Amino acid sequence: MNGAFEDIEIGLSRETPSRTVTEDEMLAFSREFDPQVFHLDPEAAKESVFGGLCASGWHTASLMMRLQMDSWKSAYSMGSPGFDDLKWLKPLFPGDSIRVRSTCIDKTPSRSKADRGSAVWKTEVVNQKDEVVLSANLIGIYRKRDTG
Amino acid sequence: MNGAFEDIEIGLSRETPSRTVTEDEMLAFSREFDPQVFHLDPEAAKESVFGGLCASGWHTASLMMRLQMDSWKSAYSMGSPGFDDLKWLKPLFPGDSIRVRSTCIDKTPSRSKADRGSAVWKTEVVNQKDEVVLSANLIGIYRKRDTG
Repeated sequence: MNGAFEDIEIGLSRETPSRTVTEDEMLAFSREFDPQVFHLDPEAAKESVFGGLCASGWHTASLMMRLQMDSWKSAYSMGSPGFDDLKWLKPLFPGDSIRVRSTCIDKTPSRSKADRGSAVWKTEVVNQKDEVVLSANLIGIYRKRDTG
Repeated sequence: MNGAFEDIEIGLSRETPSRTVTEDEMLAFSREFDPQVFHLDPEAAKESVFGGLCASGWHTASLMMRLQMDSWKSAYSMGSPGFDDLKWLKPLFPGDSIRVRSTCIDKTPSRSKADRGSAVWKTEVVNQKDEVVLSANLIGIYRKRDTG
């Protein structure tokens, strides 16, 4: 089920199908995790720097994960130690359609564990205007196929 | 309602109350955003590197946001441009209790906008064994009080 380290190549680039995100989904996430006024109240959000209700950045990040899961075997890894340099570049508004594009920019066999290696993916969430909403360099740990 | 730039001091350090995270919460989040086997299937997760079912790292990050919202006025900002160096250091298991501790490590008035400034918070999610589960340097933009 998981992606294998051998199948990942530096330069490998791909894009998911797009998905429309509704206001209801945004409100549900914000109520649970990020109850700031510009994520919860469409009227008051007009006065915010975003100019209107928008998704929690953590919601956008979580949707980025799900979009990848739905499209790519190599989104399934052994886990991730973390990542660098997440940028929320544009607000995600209700009704926007987002997709994820991702390019492998590094790949390193583990020095301590012979059965695995890591890959770094320059990952972007892009909206229907081709604006980058979120970018991050995500890291996954992958098992080598020939070591089980 | 929001925190003001003037009230934030470098070195300011604080900790939220703790909150127990249930397996049901973890499963609900994972089904929606991160359907990897070690986040969904308690039996199969025993074979993973985590040794058992654990929360999606995006769930842990989202809970970090909510814990701060529940405790600190300055968790409410004008928004965030992103952050650096998120590390998932330990798995978050069902029944674990987590709290957030946070220290302001930098504070900078905006060069282009006189009414605001940014602050960087070294932020850690800590479990009931005092292990750091997640760490990140979060950034918030704050309005200056005297400019409205």
